[in-house]
Amino acid sequence: QIDSARLWGSIHETAQFGATQKGGVRRLTLSAEDKQVRDWFRKACEDAGLEVHIDALGSMFGLRKGRDMSKPPVGIGSHLDTQPTGGKYDGILGTLGALEVIRTLNDAGIETEAPICVVNWTNEEGSRFAPAMMASAAYVGDFTTDDILSRKDAEGVTVGQALDTIGYRGDRPVGFQKLGCFVELHIEQGPILEAEAKTIGVVDSGQGVLWYDGYITGFESHAGSTPMPLRRDALATLSEIVLAMEAIAKKHGPKAVGTIGEAVIANPSRNVIPGEIAFTVDCRSADATIMDALDRDLRAAIAEIATRRKVEVKLDLVWRKAPTHFDPKLIAAVENAANTLGYSSRRITSGAGHDACNLNTVMPAAMVFVPCKDGISHNELEDATQADCTAGANVLMHTVLAIAGV
Amino acid sequence: QIDSARLWGSIHETAQFGATQKGGVRRLTLSAEDKQVRDWFRKACEDAGLEVHIDALGSMFGLRKGRDMSKPPVGIGSHLDTQPTGGKYDGILGTLGALEVIRTLNDAGIETEAPICVVNWTNEEGSRFAPAMMASAAYVGDFTTDDILSRKDAEGVTVGQALDTIGYRGDRPVGFQKLGCFVELHIEQGPILEAEAKTIGVVDSGQGVLWYDGYITGFESHAGSTPMPLRRDALATLSEIVLAMEAIAKKHGPKAVGTIGEAVIANPSRNVIPGEIAFTVDCRSADATIMDALDRDLRAAIAEIATRRKVEVKLDLVWRKAPTHFDPKLIAAVENAANTLGYSSRRITSGAGHDACNLNTVMPAAMVFVPCKDGISHNELEDATQADCTAGANVLMHTVLAIAGV
Ligand SMILES: NC(=O)NCCC(=O)O
Ligand SMILES: NC(=O)NCCC(=O)O
Repeated sequence: QIDSARLWGSIHETAQFGATQKGGVRRLTLSAEDKQVRDWFRKACEDAGLEVHIDALGSMFGLRKGRDMSKPPVGIGSHLDTQPTGGKYDGILGTLGALEVIRTLNDAGIETEAPICVVNWTNEEGSRFAPAMMASAAYVGDFTTDDILSRKDAEGVTVGQALDTIGYRGDRPVGFQKLGCFVELHIEQGPILEAEAKTIGVVDSGQGVLWYDGYITGFESHAGSTPMPLRRDALATLSEIVLAMEAIAKKHGPKAVGTIGEAVIANPSRNVIPGEIAFTVDCRSADATIMDALDRDLRAAIAEIATRRKVEVKLDLVWRKAPTHFDPKLIAAVENAANTLGYSSRRITSGAGHDACNLNTVMPAAMVFVPCKDGISHNELEDATQADCTAGANVLMHTVLAIAGV
Repeated sequence: QIDSARLWGSIHETAQFGATQKGGVRRLTLSAEDKQVRDWFRKACEDAGLEVHIDALGSMFGLRKGRDMSKPPVGIGSHLDTQPTGGKYDGILGTLGALEVIRTLNDAGIETEAPICVVNWTNEEGSRFAPAMMASAAYVGDFTTDDILSRKDAEGVTVGQALDTIGYRGDRPVGFQKLGCFVELHIEQGPILEAEAKTIGVVDSGQGVLWYDGYITGFESHAGSTPMPLRRDALATLSEIVLAMEAIAKKHGPKAVGTIGEAVIANPSRNVIPGEIAFTVDCRSADATIMDALDRDLRAAIAEIATRRKVEVKLDLVWRKAPTHFDPKLIAAVENAANTLGYSSRRITSGAGHDACNLNTVMPAAMVFVPCKDGISHNELEDATQADCTAGANVLMHTVLAIAGV
């Protein structure tokens, strides 16, 4: 059993780095607050006897030796960055839960056959830089390191510059740390476990993701003197697109979601009809066929709206992540650990994307979910109980021991 | 006849202050660019022999003596500030056209019975500070000077601070310069004169204006893991409001317009459902009964949308300007001047608001419109011909001579 109070203490100690007034955390990737939590985490790993190395994208790897160093390490961990209005658990539970596993094994004097590697992946959230799960995507070869280093945030700062600013551009190439498999503990970020009163979600799959950048070009004109029929209003156009995305996602029932999270009017003014708007689209399904349908339906809807309103709409796909099917053996190991420990559980699909989904494309991976209050995440009110977090970390530890061998 | 080349020259000379790449002007009120054009204008007025004074809100008054100084001056002018993506004519034609009238009278050695006062009103556009036609509204007593001085822009800078920064907080109290009447030359900013091939619009009325500040509070949550039916999406809510405003305005045919020009998502992120949005509404009609209907219909639509989507929407009326009915005698004087000069003309309603609409509440006022290309305004592509601008200034001059007496 892990040390529940110690895990809970480190979650709340690190929550001070970027703490918001509403009790959440604002710790955008590679920000000054991210540096604070990284410094804390590096020291904690070193104090736990791990050998810490950092790769060219700032991901942090803390290695605990195994008896057989020819075996590839079992990877565990998650991320410490948050959304602009994020919570105290998303990513943090999985990273500090992994640290807690190491501390517990140390305290109990348990050696494993294979080594164990604790990982903090850079920019899982994808809020400051796109795509989400950026560093793990580069790790599995979906993007080159140079491509990722040149990505820019809204202020034009590149990933490379941001890494240098906080001193976290590491000396190891991306991929230097080989892993045999990866297990990630995370809050569910959805309402299912809580509704069914299950303690553990045995994650067997994850939704695929489509991310688009959109751009509307209408025509700026006077709000008072331009007759309604002559308008080419970029915001009215966006409004139809938002409602179309919503209707398209709803059409597929619980099997799809669609969101417009960002929309910026160029040179806004109260008495000017909006002429240009940049926006982003996030839509998802666990079913690849439905993902294709979402793409097709969205493009068709936009084409119709643009033609009718005589505006131009550009829609660029900037990221496509296929649905995830986790490794059957690892899924069974997680389920087995939950059963052994006497926790109620159910199989579940992840609505959110996770680094484990990327890693699963090149190695066996799996995830452990615990409930979060009202299914709320990406919100400062995100909440989870100490008991559930503890249960999740225990399942993670027992899964690791089963894989690594004692 | 005014000096067409001189008028055209001063329009294009001052267009350099805040010139944009697309050939427009970005000269927000009380900005550094506004100071440049004000300095230019003050010198031009003084060179034309006017006595220039500045009031506590930065409005500039240049007085030309009349034979009978017991008579109140005939006010002419407009504004030199522009929209963020504004044109070279909106306001500028009326201000520099007034200056050109003075220069022409000087050249011809014409004295008038009543004095003439050229005015540049501060913040007509209402883009940086609300409301529009701010200084003329204070002049007629709709707002106190202190109230206006404390209004803030989006960065939190007050009108008072902005005036001090550019050195245009004048030493005269608002209202110090009495006027007997006011005549304003302006581009139409709509498509009617051009479509009917008329040179002069004799403005007999102006639309009333309703300005609102709106605020939507939904709930931020994860774009991937929040099922569609559980969402309280602030942007989907705004989208319905935008389309409702459009439908309500269209219902009243050509007699109403409605626009949402500004909308800002708080803490936007690609994979977060928008939780809070601030927006503004501008809706107008020349018919007070329709204005009431617009207000009623908009509030009813918003209430229905908010209830159905389980979000909160606040809608605050921040400005209500009643429809304008200009002075019949001055309207006739403008019409007469157009006829005498042989320009084709028609009566017209102003879609936009103007300082003359404010002044009309306390003194006789009227306006002269000239066509602008495709009715486009509040756009960098705003355009007008030299011939039409010249015609408008000639009508202004002959109207002034008729009122002031030669
Ligand atoms: N787990 C999580 O919130 N990931 C952020 C990436 C995404 O799914 O949008
Ligand atoms: N004439 C003009 O564009 N005025 C700006 C104020 C408004 O009508 O919105």
